[in-house]
Amino acid sequence: MVTPLTGPDDLDAAGLERLLQHLEQGGVSALFILGTTGEGPGLSYRLRREVIDRVCDYAGDRLPVLVGVADTSLVESLLLADYAARKGAAAVVTTCPYYFPMSQGEYLSFLERVSPDYALPLFLYNLPRHVGFSIGAKTARCAADLPNVWGLKDSSGDLDYFREVAGLLRERPEFSLLNGPEQILAETVAMGAHGGVCGGANLYPKLYVGLYNAARDRNEPEIKRLHKQVLEICDLVYTHGPDGSSYLRGIKCALELAGICAGAMAEPYSALTGEPREKIGRALAAMGLLATSV
Amino acid sequence: MVTPLTGPDDLDAAGLERLLQHLEQGGVSALFILGTTGEGPGLSYRLRREVIDRVCDYAGDRLPVLVGVADTSLVESLLLADYAARKGAAAVVTTCPYYFPMSQGEYLSFLERVSPDYALPLFLYNLPRHVGFSIGAKTARCAADLPNVWGLKDSSGDLDYFREVAGLLRERPEFSLLNGPEQILAETVAMGAHGGVCGGANLYPKLYVGLYNAARDRNEPEIKRLHKQVLEICDLVYTHGPDGSSYLRGIKCALELAGICAGAMAEPYSALTGEPREKIGRALAAMGLLATSV
Amino acid sequence: MVTPLTGPDDLDAAGLERLLQHLEQGGVSALFILGTTGEGPGLSYRLRREVIDRVCDYAGDRLPVLVGVADTSLVESLLLADYAARKGAAAVVTTCPYYFPMSQGEYLSFLERVSPDYALPLFLYNLPRHVGFSIGAKTARCAADLPNVWGLKDSSGDLDYFREVAGLLRERPEFSLLNGPEQILAETVAMGAHGGVCGGANLYPKLYVGLYNAARDRNEPEIKRLHKQVLEICDLVYTHGPDGSSYLRGIKCALELAGICAGAMAEPYSALTGEPREKIGRALAAMGLLATSV
Amino acid sequence: MVTPLTGPDDLDAAGLERLLQHLEQGGVSALFILGTTGEGPGLSYRLRREVIDRVCDYAGDRLPVLVGVADTSLVESLLLADYAARKGAAAVVTTCPYYFPMSQGEYLSFLERVSPDYALPLFLYNLPRHVGFSIGAKTARCAADLPNVWGLKDSSGDLDYFREVAGLLRERPEFSLLNGPEQILAETVAMGAHGGVCGGANLYPKLYVGLYNAARDRNEPEIKRLHKQVLEICDLVYTHGPDGSSYLRGIKCALELAGICAGAMAEPYSALTGEPREKIGRALAAMGLLATSV
Repeated sequence: MVTPLTGPDDLDAAGLERLLQHLEQGGVSALFILGTTGEGPGLSYRLRREVIDRVCDYAGDRLPVLVGVADTSLVESLLLADYAARKGAAAVVTTCPYYFPMSQGEYLSFLERVSPDYALPLFLYNLPRHVGFSIGAKTARCAADLPNVWGLKDSSGDLDYFREVAGLLRERPEFSLLNGPEQILAETVAMGAHGGVCGGANLYPKLYVGLYNAARDRNEPEIKRLHKQVLEICDLVYTHGPDGSSYLRGIKCALELAGICAGAMAEPYSALTGEPREKIGRALAAMGLLATSV
Repeated sequence: MVTPLTGPDDLDAAGLERLLQHLEQGGVSALFILGTTGEGPGLSYRLRREVIDRVCDYAGDRLPVLVGVADTSLVESLLLADYAARKGAAAVVTTCPYYFPMSQGEYLSFLERVSPDYALPLFLYNLPRHVGFSIGAKTARCAADLPNVWGLKDSSGDLDYFREVAGLLRERPEFSLLNGPEQILAETVAMGAHGGVCGGANLYPKLYVGLYNAARDRNEPEIKRLHKQVLEICDLVYTHGPDGSSYLRGIKCALELAGICAGAMAEPYSALTGEPREKIGRALAAMGLLATSV
Repeated sequence: MVTPLTGPDDLDAAGLERLLQHLEQGGVSALFILGTTGEGPGLSYRLRREVIDRVCDYAGDRLPVLVGVADTSLVESLLLADYAARKGAAAVVTTCPYYFPMSQGEYLSFLERVSPDYALPLFLYNLPRHVGFSIGAKTARCAADLPNVWGLKDSSGDLDYFREVAGLLRERPEFSLLNGPEQILAETVAMGAHGGVCGGANLYPKLYVGLYNAARDRNEPEIKRLHKQVLEICDLVYTHGPDGSSYLRGIKCALELAGICAGAMAEPYSALTGEPREKIGRALAAMGLLATSV
Repeated sequence: MVTPLTGPDDLDAAGLERLLQHLEQGGVSALFILGTTGEGPGLSYRLRREVIDRVCDYAGDRLPVLVGVADTSLVESLLLADYAARKGAAAVVTTCPYYFPMSQGEYLSFLERVSPDYALPLFLYNLPRHVGFSIGAKTARCAADLPNVWGLKDSSGDLDYFREVAGLLRERPEFSLLNGPEQILAETVAMGAHGGVCGGANLYPKLYVGLYNAARDRNEPEIKRLHKQVLEICDLVYTHGPDGSSYLRGIKCALELAGICAGAMAEPYSALTGEPREKIGRALAAMGLLATSV
C-alpha cells in the first residue's frame, strides 16, 4: 500500500481512508503498509506511527495488517514493532539492517539473536536492489526454522531465485512465501507463492486479486487475459523518469489522477509533473479497465 | 570515532571519556562521531543523542564536533541535526537517503531542496559500498555551490574518483575535501585533501596525525615510514572474519584489547572472539608502536 | 484552539482544516495551539507534532502560530520548540515545569537559566489550577526583563492579580499581556491586556473578536451586549459534568454538534454523552447567535 | 532511587553503578526508578530510557525493577511501559495524568479504560502535593479490583488516609500497599504496609531495611532506635532551601558528599551550594551512622 501524502511529511488522511475503502472493496486479503511502495524508510517516525494508527483503526478485525519496520537500527525497528503490536497489527516485515554489509552467515546469526525480540510474527523482506544484500535461498530455508519467522516476501523479481526458495521451502508449507513484482505474479504462484504483494493493486485491486485467483486455480485463459493487462499498466505507468524511482513515482501519480489520494512524495523523491504526468493520464483514460476496476 | 559500547544499545560512558582523552592527547583537530565507524545508523536514536551530549560536553570549545546524521528519512536526519546544533556541534555529515535508488540528477535536486533546512553546515558523505550510490564527481562540484554545503568526505577509496573531484574543486578551495580510507591518506592529501577521517586514528591518533602532517609538508621519508606502519595495522587488524565487517570488528576489538574502551558492537554485528581476537592481541603486542603511540 | 480528534490519539485532520477556516473567517489575529484547551500535555508527541505540521502549513504567512510546549521535562519542551521553529511557528508558550514544587525565586532562576535556550520567543503561561503554581506578579515583572521572554498569558481568572501584573508591566508596553478566561475579557482589556485567548472563540470566533474590539475601543453598549452573550455560552455549554473538566468537555461537544469537527477527547477525559450532550444541543439551537456567527 | 546526574540531561553512569551496588549491598528487596525522588518527570525520554536500560541490565534476575512512567500524556506513559517491559522490568508505577483536573469518578473510569493497556503490572502512585489530586481511599479500593492494578504507593504522608486505605484493602491482602515518607515508615507497616519506598534509603539502605524489618517483627526497642536516626537524617539533610524542593536537593547533595554519585539535578532544580551544602557535610560527618552504614 502506498502512503498517501499531501507533502513530504504530511499524511493525506482523507485519501488514506478512500484508498483503504478502495482496497477493501477490491477484495484484498490483507494490508501491507510502510514497505518500499509505502515509502516506509523515508517517512518520519511520527508519520509512520500515524499511518499505523489510522490503518489499524480502519482494518479492525476485518483485514490483517502487516507493518514494514525496516531500519538500519534494530532498536528502532523493535520499538516500531512494539507500537504496531499495541495498535493491533498482525505481523511485521523487515529487511536486513541495510547500510551494514553482511555475509549470509552473519545475517543468519543476526536473525537467530533478534527474531525472538519482535513483538509480532516476523516476515523477512528480500529486496536486493534497495538494501544491497540478497537473502540466499539456503539462508531463507534456515531462517524458516526460527520460531518467530513466519514468512518471506521476495521483491527481487528473480524467477530462478524464487524457484529455488520455493523448492527448499516445500517441506515447510505453513511458511508464508509472498512475491512482490506483479510482472511475475502468475509464475510465482505456479511455483508455490502463497500470495502477491503488488504495487499496482493500489490502483486496480480487483485486477490483481483476479490474477492471483486465476493463477491459484490454474485457469490459463484468465491468467493470460489479466497478465496482459498487468503488463500494460507496468509499461504505461512505471516507465517515466529515472529507472530507480519510476515505478513509485508512476503509481503515486496514477493514484492522484484517478482521484483516489494525493500524490505528493516523501523525500528524496518528488512527484511527476509535466509530460510524464500527462502521459499517465492518457494511459489511464485509454485503458477501458480504469472505469470498471478502480 | 567509534562508539564505545558495553552492549548493543548501551554506551560505555567511561570508555568514551578515555577515548576522547586519548584522541585529544593524540592531537586530532576535530571529532567525527556517528559515522560508519561510529556505527551511527545502527544505533537507537536514544543512544545517538546520548553520544552527541557526552561528546559535545567533552569537546567544549577545544575541538569541533562533526555529527553523522545519515538516515533514510530526511525528517529524522534534520531532527538529529537540530539536536546536534542545540548541543553545540560544529557541522553535520550525511549520505544520500540510501534505500531509495536515485539518479545523479535526482540527488542534486534533492540536495538543492533540503540542504538549507539543516541547522548546521552540511558535509556530504560518499560511501558507495554502504549506500549503493556514488556521488558523481560533477555532482559533487555542483553541490559545492549550494549555500549550506561545506565539504565532502569521500570513503570510496577510489583514487581516480578522488583525483577527479579534487580537480573539479580546485576553484573552490574553501570547500572542505576529506578522505576516509587510511591506506590512501598520503596520496589524497597530495591531491588536495584537506584532512583525513581515518578509523585507525581511534587506536593510534598520533600516527595518523603524523602521517597527515608529513603528507601536507611533502616530507617523503616520513610519509614512507608512517605509511608502512598504517598498512601494517590494516593488514593485522582489519582482516578477520567476513570482508564487509572485518574493519569495524577489528578496530573495536583492538580498542578493547588496548584498554581504551569496551568492544561490544551494535546489531547487526557482533564482537570478534576466539582466534581472530587472539591474533589481534598478538599483533598489537608485536607492534612496538603500541607502547608509545596509543 | 482545540485539537479535533476522532479518538484519544487520532487527529481529525478534515475537522482541523474546517476549524482553521472557521477561525480565519472569524477574524482571529493569531492561533494558539496545544494549550490547555488544545489538550496539549495530554497528547502523544507524535500527535503534537502532527498538529504543529498541519496548523503551520495552513497558517503560512497569514496567521502567526503560538505553540504550547509545556512539559515537566525541560528537554522535551525545548525539543518541541525546536520542532515548532522548524515548521515556522511564531512563538512558544509554556507553564512552569509542573509536578515539581517551586518557590517564586526558584522559578525565576530557572527562567533566567533556560529562557535563552528556546528557539522561539517565549510566552509564560500562568495557570494555577492545572500546575499548582501561580506566577507571582513581581516574578512576572522580573521575567519581562529576560531577553527571550515576550509575554504572559494569564489563565488564572483572578482580576486582582491581573490588575497588579498589568500595573507592574505598564512600563514595559511591548511585553504582551494576554488573558485567558472569556468571562473577564472586557475587564482585562480595560486594564491593559493586549488580547484574549478564549476557548469559546473556537465556536464563535466573531463574537470574541467583536468583544475584544469593543473593549479596546471602549464601546460600552457593544461590550455589554456581547459580554452577555459570552456569559450565556459559559452558562449553557461549560457547566456539565465534574467541575474540573466541564469547560473542555462542553466546548468539544459543542464543536461536534455544530458540525465543525469531531469531538473525541484525549485521555484522561471522555466526551460528553446523553443528557448533557442533548442540553448543549438545545442550547446551541436556542441561541440565535449560532446560525449567524459560527 | 535517585537518578545520578553530572548535568541536567547527563547521566552519571559510573555513579549509577556505585549507587546500585550500594543499594544491593544494603539489602533492598527491589528498585523503584524514575519516581519523584528519581526526578522521572523532569528527565528527557532519552535519559529515562538510558536509566531503564542500565538499571535493568544491572538488576538482572536478582532485584525486581519498578519503573515510574508518570506522564500527562497516557500514550507516552504506555510507550515507556512498553520499553520497560522490553528491558525486563517487573512493574510500572504511575500517578494520575496530572495537569488535567479530575473527579474521583473520572479517575476511576480512566483507570478502568486504560489499566489493561499497560504492558506490565501497574502500581498506582498517590502524590497529592505534586499532582494536585488525591486518590480517594474508596477509589483505591475499587481500583484494587481491576485486573492489572497490583498495588498502591502512597506518598501523601497522611496517616489517617493510610489507615483508611489499609482498612479497606484488608480483604485484598495480595494487593501491595507501599508507603513513601520515611518519617512514618514504622507506623504504616504497623497498619499493614507491605513495604517502604524511602528516599533516605539511597544514602543509608541498611538503616531503612532495618527499620522495616523491625516494624514488621514488631520489635519496639529497635523501631525506636532506628526511627530516631531516620528523623535525625530528615532534620539535618532535608531542610535546606525552599520547602518544596528541600528533600530532593538535600538527598542528592548528601549522596555526592558521601562519594556515592554526582549530585547535579535535572531542571527545574539546581544543586545545593554554599552554606547548606556545608551544613549537610557536617551533619553526615557527625552522624556516627555514616561511616558504618553507607
